[in-house]
Amino acid sequence: MPDAYSYLGPAGTFTWSALGQVPQARGAEWRSVHNVGEALDDVASGRSRGAVIAVENSVEGGVNATHDALSRIPGIRISGEYLVPVDFDLVARPGTALAEVRVVVAHPVAYAQCHLFLDREIPGHAHLPATSNVAAPASLQESDLAQAAVAPAGIAGRYPLEVLASGIGDNRGAVTRFVLVERAGRVPARTGADKTSLIVDLPDEQAGGLLGLLEQFATRGINMSLLQSRPIGDALGRYRFVIDIDGHIEDERIADALLGVKRFSPRVVFLGSYPRADGHRPEVSSRFTDAAFVEARDWLQGLVSGVPERGK
Amino acid sequence: MPDAYSYLGPAGTFTWSALGQVPQARGAEWRSVHNVGEALDDVASGRSRGAVIAVENSVEGGVNATHDALSRIPGIRISGEYLVPVDFDLVARPGTALAEVRVVVAHPVAYAQCHLFLDREIPGHAHLPATSNVAAPASLQESDLAQAAVAPAGIAGRYPLEVLASGIGDNRGAVTRFVLVERAGRVPARTGADKTSLIVDLPDEQAGGLLGLLEQFATRGINMSLLQSRPIGDALGRYRFVIDIDGHIEDERIADALLGVKRFSPRVVFLGSYPRADGHRPEVSSRFTDAAFVEARDWLQGLVSGVPERGK
Amino acid sequence: MPDAYSYLGPAGTFTWSALGQVPQARGAEWRSVHNVGEALDDVASGRSRGAVIAVENSVEGGVNATHDALSRIPGIRISGEYLVPVDFDLVARPGTALAEVRVVVAHPVAYAQCHLFLDREIPGHAHLPATSNVAAPASLQESDLAQAAVAPAGIAGRYPLEVLASGIGDNRGAVTRFVLVERAGRVPARTGADKTSLIVDLPDEQAGGLLGLLEQFATRGINMSLLQSRPIGDALGRYRFVIDIDGHIEDERIADALLGVKRFSPRVVFLGSYPRADGHRPEVSSRFTDAAFVEARDWLQGLVSGVPERGK
Amino acid sequence: MPDAYSYLGPAGTFTWSALGQVPQARGAEWRSVHNVGEALDDVASGRSRGAVIAVENSVEGGVNATHDALSRIPGIRISGEYLVPVDFDLVARPGTALAEVRVVVAHPVAYAQCHLFLDREIPGHAHLPATSNVAAPASLQESDLAQAAVAPAGIAGRYPLEVLASGIGDNRGAVTRFVLVERAGRVPARTGADKTSLIVDLPDEQAGGLLGLLEQFATRGINMSLLQSRPIGDALGRYRFVIDIDGHIEDERIADALLGVKRFSPRVVFLGSYPRADGHRPEVSSRFTDAAFVEARDWLQGLVSGVPERGK
Repeated sequence: MPDAYSYLGPAGTFTWSALGQVPQARGAEWRSVHNVGEALDDVASGRSRGAVIAVENSVEGGVNATHDALSRIPGIRISGEYLVPVDFDLVARPGTALAEVRVVVAHPVAYAQCHLFLDREIPGHAHLPATSNVAAPASLQESDLAQAAVAPAGIAGRYPLEVLASGIGDNRGAVTRFVLVERAGRVPARTGADKTSLIVDLPDEQAGGLLGLLEQFATRGINMSLLQSRPIGDALGRYRFVIDIDGHIEDERIADALLGVKRFSPRVVFLGSYPRADGHRPEVSSRFTDAAFVEARDWLQGLVSGVPERGK
Repeated sequence: MPDAYSYLGPAGTFTWSALGQVPQARGAEWRSVHNVGEALDDVASGRSRGAVIAVENSVEGGVNATHDALSRIPGIRISGEYLVPVDFDLVARPGTALAEVRVVVAHPVAYAQCHLFLDREIPGHAHLPATSNVAAPASLQESDLAQAAVAPAGIAGRYPLEVLASGIGDNRGAVTRFVLVERAGRVPARTGADKTSLIVDLPDEQAGGLLGLLEQFATRGINMSLLQSRPIGDALGRYRFVIDIDGHIEDERIADALLGVKRFSPRVVFLGSYPRADGHRPEVSSRFTDAAFVEARDWLQGLVSGVPERGK
Repeated sequence: MPDAYSYLGPAGTFTWSALGQVPQARGAEWRSVHNVGEALDDVASGRSRGAVIAVENSVEGGVNATHDALSRIPGIRISGEYLVPVDFDLVARPGTALAEVRVVVAHPVAYAQCHLFLDREIPGHAHLPATSNVAAPASLQESDLAQAAVAPAGIAGRYPLEVLASGIGDNRGAVTRFVLVERAGRVPARTGADKTSLIVDLPDEQAGGLLGLLEQFATRGINMSLLQSRPIGDALGRYRFVIDIDGHIEDERIADALLGVKRFSPRVVFLGSYPRADGHRPEVSSRFTDAAFVEARDWLQGLVSGVPERGK
Repeated sequence: MPDAYSYLGPAGTFTWSALGQVPQARGAEWRSVHNVGEALDDVASGRSRGAVIAVENSVEGGVNATHDALSRIPGIRISGEYLVPVDFDLVARPGTALAEVRVVVAHPVAYAQCHLFLDREIPGHAHLPATSNVAAPASLQESDLAQAAVAPAGIAGRYPLEVLASGIGDNRGAVTRFVLVERAGRVPARTGADKTSLIVDLPDEQAGGLLGLLEQFATRGINMSLLQSRPIGDALGRYRFVIDIDGHIEDERIADALLGVKRFSPRVVFLGSYPRADGHRPEVSSRFTDAAFVEARDWLQGLVSGVPERGK
């Protein structure tokens, strides 16, 4: 397999920053692609060893597209998680004053995220769209249609550009969550601070179908960190859920919950178990430790085989 | 082990009728005892191979005592279930007319169960207590203190007595449920129409503890046919539950539920899996068949080992 | 209405002790009856103002009978709760030594509850049955068929009898719970330490029916102190539940739960709200206080009427 | 208030199509704005009487932004729902052949949604970004940098352009859901085919918090058609949920559920009750009809006031 990693390019995007956090991508080829589907196709077809894609809170769009693609493309798995702070600078050619700015070049989604600042500081400005958050500042060098660009924080250093204002996003402190996707193979080793991602179709049922699904986690003391409904698409009112839970498929409680979900749902896609970006280790009640599962199995085995119970 | 079976005697009681339904007791010694604790002690100590005891709706008392004894005495198991219709006759020495009856001899619990009939038909009668439902009619032969006795239906034929009135119980069609208790050993083979009995202590928790317990059954599509709270006894407000569920410990869904209950509860007593008296086979949703459990395990095994999923 | 109270007599029974705790019964006529049904009929028909009956852990039998009667007889309500310690003495005529006892007179249920002591201390003794726990010691004066009697603790002082042994029950510290039943009328005032009793039929449904019922309490933070299944009686496998919950029908959370239960169940019998015997005041989470209910209603009212929300 | 309606413009966008379905917007001023926040601000500040915004499956981005804005801006309410099929044409100046296309002008999100077609049919093409789905075809008239544009289906007729290919979206049959937002006032009348939208913060709790929320709906037989987790934003791992349920705030079951949710959650935003776009009338079990609620309230009232129950 070629030692390549696909990402939503070009160099300088937030996705590119996330890829910079992936240890195994150092020294490999970085393949810039145009959308999430293309990135995942690269992995599924073997053109790339991995792909980094946004899965939550993206400022570059495509989160729903990501989930839909993960649900559709077989044979791929999430193997890592990376967080990138999402912040924007307003950049310009050296010598430009804020008061001179009339046209701002920006990716439309980034533009929307900075509108409070732009409307307040540059009233009456016009918006020139760019294909990406990198194309926006880059275009300042090739054309003078715009006087300033909305650019990912820190990117100005890559170009002969100056920062007119930094931290111009409406939502300071925003973070986008990215994942590394690879071909399905052995699950990454358990670290104790892991996350497991699933896509689960609800059975065709009345009110309470989702409740039945969530009970699979609640009755095993498993915390959810993401729950998102997506239309299945074949009929109105049929939903699947994108779910992140705290733990690893090799944790007994997670494995047991997966068995329960598998029996419950007409279709489950296991997207992977992988180390959490934040390193948070969930607190597991004594009732749901691996030891508790092993002890219960031993007890059951004793019952069936006829060995009398002890210490009742 | 002596080939003996203990029962709440003497011969002729409803418990004695239940023992008559136990195939393996044919030809064995039938040991008449005075109460449920004694019967279970016989089994625990090896004095008897088995004991038949009432567990629900008893007219001879002792149902709570039964559950408490089952909870306390280790090393015993329920291995069979038997139903006995509970009905009473009013019997008398030959030639006695109903109008002549002034004193009725009866076990106090049976007496209470026939009071509608007795108050209506023999107003002003007196009650002479008997130690058992058999001692009542038997005493008519030994003494003329009473003119009539309340007796289990059909017993008159064992004595030179006549039936003055039959079906005199307040609650026609009542049935008492009995179980056969033996020493813990291999669980009786699965028949497809089985019942599993448990005693489960609730964890020390707020409202919702019982809900958590019942979810262990509900999330596996398991029906309960008995649920009875009993004080644990060590502190006010702490409860255990006596539970009968439809199915056998070798049914995958039951085994899985037992694992869940074991992890949930500080103390679980498995009382046994055994054929139901009524032969009723539960309908099991396709989601909870043995095949569904096996399929889910295979799926999980494939995920962990890295074999790509098929047919997604 | 005659100022009379019915109880399972005669004077000296545990029920009689419980009636002694009922303030409004002081100075009234105490009417001794033979069983629970008779006591409740007295109330329903107006022959008595109230009746005291055992509802849990009775040593005099009749607990299931109590629940069945409460379920069947309309127009009556529980209005008080009383606890009586259940303990037994072995009593005899003055001058009798334990070694001389050959025959023990006892109510059969009390006899069963003392069998550990009797079997150990008086091996080989015979049992002479009595109609009640009071008739047993009383009979020692009228006949010398027995040398000793099992009697409620403390009763010896009412007769010229001596205590051979006290605290002879197998289960020390046992307590029986009694309730006062009156004709349905205004519910007793809320004290903050109240209990509410219900009988609820489950709807005809699969696994999960009971869960749906219990959720009505759990989702309102209501603790249950009694839960007992009883066959409805019209068909096998149909159950009703006898339920005690912590709180008073005038507590908002209880009223709301009753509404939920009423909609859920094909048949609910409200047995009453009344002060708890133990005076325990439940801890109510801030989410379920009366104030929380009132605040939510005000909020909803504002939404519907079009007044904008404040403090969002 | 000015008779104006704000929408994500310019004329020709999918949002503009949705606004065309709003009866009260006929004859009013249509105010084209640049993003969802601006549209909602127009409503909150009174500059517009209403705004139409995308809330699900948008091809023009901004769905998460929509929910965040609805959560943040007080005093506004959803009062209508509209569905717009999302389909794209590839359009060009008259006389252009598909084989001549080298550069495609498109809004970046629309471009991403058509990449399967574009990659297959126009291999090696370049992408020129546009600020909106309308700006893309419009730009073909002003500049010949691109030979073709991705445009909303049917828009070609507004320009002297020809359709090279229709239905070029990757996901045929996609529909975007829009809502009309107005200032909070009286809730639109109940039609029997209504939807209610909420934003609910979960309490700070363990696994099971969401379950507790969903039970508020499930125990009242209420179906959910949207459930989406959104980070609350003040701390990692704290979530709010965007929820659509079937029914109207004046339906008893919905009002009751809102009360339950209000007590449960530290913060609930009622976004509105409004007629569903698809006119679907939910089936309501007899247990959850308005009549069932009224009947339960009457029953409770009778209990408290002391009127004996009838027909028990």
